[in-house]
Amino acid sequence: MSDKAIHAFFYPDSVAVIGASSTPGKIGHEILKSVSQYEYRGRVYAVNPKASEILGLKSYESIESIPDRIDLAVLAIPATAVPEAIEKCASKGAKAAVIVSGGFKELGGQSEEIEKKIVLTARAHGVRIIGPNCIGIFNSANRLDTFFQSRERMRRPERGPVAFMTQSGTFGCTILEWAADSNLGISKFISYGNRCDVDEADLIDYLAQDDDTKVIGVYVEGFGDGRKFMEAVKRVAAKKAVVVLKAGRSEKGSKVALSHTGWLAGSYEVCESALKQCDALAVNDIEELFDVAKALAKQPVATGRRIAMATNGIGPCVMAADRCVELGLDLPRLEERTLLRLKKELPSYCIVSNPVDLTGSGTSRDYMNALTALAEDKSVDLLMPFFVFQDTPLGEEILDLLPSLKKYGKPILCCASGGEFTRKCSDRLERSEIPVYPTPERVVAAAKALVSRNEFLKRSIQN
Amino acid sequence: MSDKAIHAFFYPDSVAVIGASSTPGKIGHEILKSVSQYEYRGRVYAVNPKASEILGLKSYESIESIPDRIDLAVLAIPATAVPEAIEKCASKGAKAAVIVSGGFKELGGQSEEIEKKIVLTARAHGVRIIGPNCIGIFNSANRLDTFFQSRERMRRPERGPVAFMTQSGTFGCTILEWAADSNLGISKFISYGNRCDVDEADLIDYLAQDDDTKVIGVYVEGFGDGRKFMEAVKRVAAKKAVVVLKAGRSEKGSKVALSHTGWLAGSYEVCESALKQCDALAVNDIEELFDVAKALAKQPVATGRRIAMATNGIGPCVMAADRCVELGLDLPRLEERTLLRLKKELPSYCIVSNPVDLTGSGTSRDYMNALTALAEDKSVDLLMPFFVFQDTPLGEEILDLLPSLKKYGKPILCCASGGEFTRKCSDRLERSEIPVYPTPERVVAAAKALVSRNEFLKRSIQN
Repeated sequence: MSDKAIHAFFYPDSVAVIGASSTPGKIGHEILKSVSQYEYRGRVYAVNPKASEILGLKSYESIESIPDRIDLAVLAIPATAVPEAIEKCASKGAKAAVIVSGGFKELGGQSEEIEKKIVLTARAHGVRIIGPNCIGIFNSANRLDTFFQSRERMRRPERGPVAFMTQSGTFGCTILEWAADSNLGISKFISYGNRCDVDEADLIDYLAQDDDTKVIGVYVEGFGDGRKFMEAVKRVAAKKAVVVLKAGRSEKGSKVALSHTGWLAGSYEVCESALKQCDALAVNDIEELFDVAKALAKQPVATGRRIAMATNGIGPCVMAADRCVELGLDLPRLEERTLLRLKKELPSYCIVSNPVDLTGSGTSRDYMNALTALAEDKSVDLLMPFFVFQDTPLGEEILDLLPSLKKYGKPILCCASGGEFTRKCSDRLERSEIPVYPTPERVVAAAKALVSRNEFLKRSIQN
Repeated sequence: MSDKAIHAFFYPDSVAVIGASSTPGKIGHEILKSVSQYEYRGRVYAVNPKASEILGLKSYESIESIPDRIDLAVLAIPATAVPEAIEKCASKGAKAAVIVSGGFKELGGQSEEIEKKIVLTARAHGVRIIGPNCIGIFNSANRLDTFFQSRERMRRPERGPVAFMTQSGTFGCTILEWAADSNLGISKFISYGNRCDVDEADLIDYLAQDDDTKVIGVYVEGFGDGRKFMEAVKRVAAKKAVVVLKAGRSEKGSKVALSHTGWLAGSYEVCESALKQCDALAVNDIEELFDVAKALAKQPVATGRRIAMATNGIGPCVMAADRCVELGLDLPRLEERTLLRLKKELPSYCIVSNPVDLTGSGTSRDYMNALTALAEDKSVDLLMPFFVFQDTPLGEEILDLLPSLKKYGKPILCCASGGEFTRKCSDRLERSEIPVYPTPERVVAAAKALVSRNEFLKRSIQN
């Protein structure tokens, strides 16, 4: 399919909200608010025969009465009314429709038939559909979103390199807010729910051409056309990393998925092996999906499996070392000259090894001495500083100094956990594009992804 | 050993900080600040021959010159000076000493010898030691803490039912702040580092008698006397749950542990099976240690393995169902009359099954209808509501209504994730003693612990 068809969803000049409501809190009200009251600058039309004005906009009695072409229609009306509405939107020029309403394939029976009818109607009139049963789309470039989650309840992230598509709107909300909270920019976002028309492969092909997108994250329960998806990933993988979380590993989970979007999750083993073959990065949970996308977006790949840690509190490094072993990463012995250098430069109570333990007395200067030596050590591929920001001897200068280590070209992934002060410190690092993770398991999983991505890229160059 | 000896650490009338520093940021300064400048009401003495006054307190030239008995000594002085200081503290009546300083067994060689000397000195003079190489203790009852982490950088939690002991001060900081952030009260906290004297078993025996403590969390790398620990757990387990995170699963992790506190982690398989035999709840990472302690502290045990979910966004329930299967928990079919009742009480677009899917249109009233029916369903042992608080149709009334379900006596564990608004909602629920977890995996792991705890209690009654 052409990119132009998908482009219409993200860059409409005019948007009609079908089923706009004048009652705050109602889905049709909140969507209209999201589309019309913030940064998006396109023309917005509300359709509701029972109202004359909503949120300061004239409310139209019908789709036909809108005195303009519609580029994008957003529908929040009962399922049975959707087919006719699609037809009318098409007559106003719409090539793209987001159906937020639920009550289709996920209910089975008669409702599934309505969904089929919508697809036939849409195909007959050249309209592409995202949804139904979804929260729709977000484009950080023009700040258009179709969400019924209000701004007061859900932050929108800044513009940046990660595109995210999800069968679950809920996980979509989670990722959007985690991204906003940790300064991870999003390019495009798509919640596609029942996926009656536009599918993951269509979106991947579009995002492959999208200059704003560098990394693609996917949460999927049941594939519609698994082969088509895998082929789309194969096409894009050398250029952009695709990270995939596949839910529904168990029969029970698959059954829940069926009641979610009407799609059975299918055999997990088959999916997992297919994902590996098409060189997607398969992850195990929503945190890992986010964490890995963050690492890939902000840091270079790791040219090898050798991790070096430095810390002012070594406990979490024990857990991290365990996890490295489980994931096949190395904690190498440092070069002899690095050891000598560190023994010279660090206070005598520090433990010069890998990890380098600066102890609770560790200062910003100690960290910079240690990390510079590790960055210059040829036996090290990735720097993993652990911080106990709570430890008062550690001054905040480290937050300004650490980014200078990026010049060595080795990825830097940090670990720090705690409360408000720690979050503030982490936030400052993340604004310098250095990711911080709250547990040893999470930072090691992110490191593994930077290693795997490099190994894939090396293989694909050789082939 | 007698409880009285451990009691001295937590309830001293006078505390001396040996190595108090007048330089803000230095460990000896921050400890003195923590002990003397906040809520703790005991008499506090600073010892530093180079200062005359620190933080408004007279600074004593020597331990001997303190004109009072010392109940607790906190030492932040170079390792080599510690043995003599212990002897002098003993001469002033001290029965308890926290040694914060590092530079002992973890360095090996000469430094390890100093640690041995300290133990001999302490034993000879009837002084008990916590540490060295630790951040010491916190007692929420009198707000005494020995931390060099300033209040600005590290929040202290409220008083409550969870005691926590940790070989890693870093993980200690993490748990204390997570507890403060999620309204989980802490009774006593102990960071014991190299554990040269007072060990986990001593602490467990003490906490067994502590009325403030209901749940005991333990992070340990290498056991000193594994058998003694297991026996202490066995003694307390029927009365108080003991949750244990054992680090150093791998040889590499064990080696890092050795450089941390001078203790090898030992064989993980042996430990894990021993932990199970002594009926500790073994967990896999620091989040799970915290999560499980929170569930046990705030909720009753689950009298069976049957989980019921209700949600306004079902995606995460797919992942949760997968995890339930992996952990041996059931998502049973609901009773026929529950299904009929829900079909009657809920809007027609809801999916009446387990999980109950209220869809993105779900309201507080829908939730209460669904959860009340689930609470009254005899095929359900534990209620697991998932919330998308971002979804605007869901009013905040649910936060006030949900606690009324506690009357059914079934545990309630929630899942919700997002940003600031979600955290505020979660915080309100947690203030009503209803735990909220940010991912499906975490809430299911917490549920599993409530099931396991019940199964252990049933076994121990039968025996």
